[in-house]
This record gives sequence, structure tokens and C-alpha cells, in this order.
Amino acid sequence: MVTFSTVFAQESEAAANKIIVMEKSALARWCNGDPSGFLEISADDVVYFDPFLEKRLDGHEELTKLYESLRGKIFTDQYEMVNPKVQLSKEMAVLTFNFNSRVNDIEYKWNCTEVYRLEADGNWKIIQTHWSITKPELK
Amino acid sequence: MVTFSTVFAQESEAAANKIIVMEKSALARWCNGDPSGFLEISADDVVYFDPFLEKRLDGHEELTKLYESLRGKIFTDQYEMVNPKVQLSKEMAVLTFNFNSRVNDIEYKWNCTEVYRLEADGNWKIIQTHWSITKPELK
Repeated sequence: MVTFSTVFAQESEAAANKIIVMEKSALARWCNGDPSGFLEISADDVVYFDPFLEKRLDGHEELTKLYESLRGKIFTDQYEMVNPKVQLSKEMAVLTFNFNSRVNDIEYKWNCTEVYRLEADGNWKIIQTHWSITKPELK
Repeated sequence: MVTFSTVFAQESEAAANKIIVMEKSALARWCNGDPSGFLEISADDVVYFDPFLEKRLDGHEELTKLYESLRGKIFTDQYEMVNPKVQLSKEMAVLTFNFNSRVNDIEYKWNCTEVYRLEADGNWKIIQTHWSITKPELK
């Protein structure tokens, strides 16, 4: 029997899978020197943290400046999204995962939180990105 | 004239302020050795990143174990939530801020993302916490 809750669960699973596919697609371009994948799916009011910034970055314009400065510079030999999880509501989805990458035989480990929002046009867009290094070896 | 959009804006501002107050209240307890403030407002399915963990931590039970191991151990002389921003939908709110703290005359700088969800009982609960160090000095 297909119940309302079955349909809801199927729709939720479909939305969660869609978001993971969007993220993986943007990551594939990112790891090949192309930041446009993330820029295309980030909202105007996106906020952003990474370990190389003094403070939170606010808005698509600031993010574009940062990402354009990195265009053609980041190439990753191997990478893996580890244990992605989506926490979903009607209008927002929180995607968290660990991320392992390998560049020139050096392994990098990351923590990542992405928050996606369902926009009025029916597309999901990123409104918050937070990348950090997993257990950084501090000075 | 009070329009629908005025009322909506007022309600949104009230919700955003409420979430910032909740966070500040939990932080005040945290900075005085008491992790219960955060445990009380974290949901069963909370996920959590900090720079000292090997990977994402999943669920209130795991978070409780971590926080109880820190009870009575963290005391912060001075701290400040810098530039908090809330991105709000009906059911979720994304709070981001930088956080400066001072312990024994050493300054620490953090990035933080909290995602709150409006639960069925009308209370906001944290479903995702991500703390990272701002510009860590790496080895």
C-alpha cells in the first residue's frame, strides 16, 4: 500500500539525493580548476567560511571574487565525499560530509556543511558553505 | 499602514533575535564550564563538527558524551559573538558568526555555523553545529 507517509519518504529521499548529486557535480568541477559549478548554485545571499579567510564572507559578489582568484589553480588527483547526510525540511536542506582529497600524494581531510534553500523558481541554491580542516596540526 | 509583509518582517526579526539570544545564552554557560545549555537546545538528530574530531559526530547521544567529557573544564575570560547573521525560513534558521575569545591572555578566533529547526512543539532546536578555527596556523 502506498501511503501518504510513503510518498513523503520517497519525495524526501529524492530531494536528498538530488542535493548530493548537485554537490558532487560542483565538486567535480571544483577539483578540476573550475569554480563555476559552485557559483552557479549559490544564492545571492550566500555566506561562506573557509580556513584561509579572516572572517565570514557575505554574498555572491564576494564569493565570486574569491573563487575567480582560484580559477584554474586547484586540481585534485583523487577525492571522496565521505558519509554524506541530508537533514531536510520543505524549504531548506542541510548537507554535511567529510571530504578526503589527495594532491601530489599528500592527503587532505575536510569537514563540510552546506545549507541549500529551495528558491521560488523551484531550484535548490546554497545559502551557507562552511569548509574546515579536520584535526588541523596546529603550530 | 501595517501590511502583511510588515508583519512578516517583524515576525522574522523576532525569530532571528530569539535564535541569537538562545545561542548567546548557551554560549554564556559553555564559557563557564557548563555544556548543558547546548545539550538542552540540541535535537536528537544533531550533527556536529569541531577541529578536534576525526569526523562528523552524529546524534545527541554522541554529542552528550563529548560535552560531558568537557564539563567543568572550559572557562573563558572574555568572549564576543561577532557579526551574527540569521538566514530564516519557516522551519529552519541558519545562524553564522565569528567568535573571539580570550583565555589566559591568549586570543582565539573561531568560525561558527548553527542550523536551528522549528520542532513540532514550537521550540527551535539545533540540528547542525560546525565550529572551526579562523585561519589556523598550520604546521
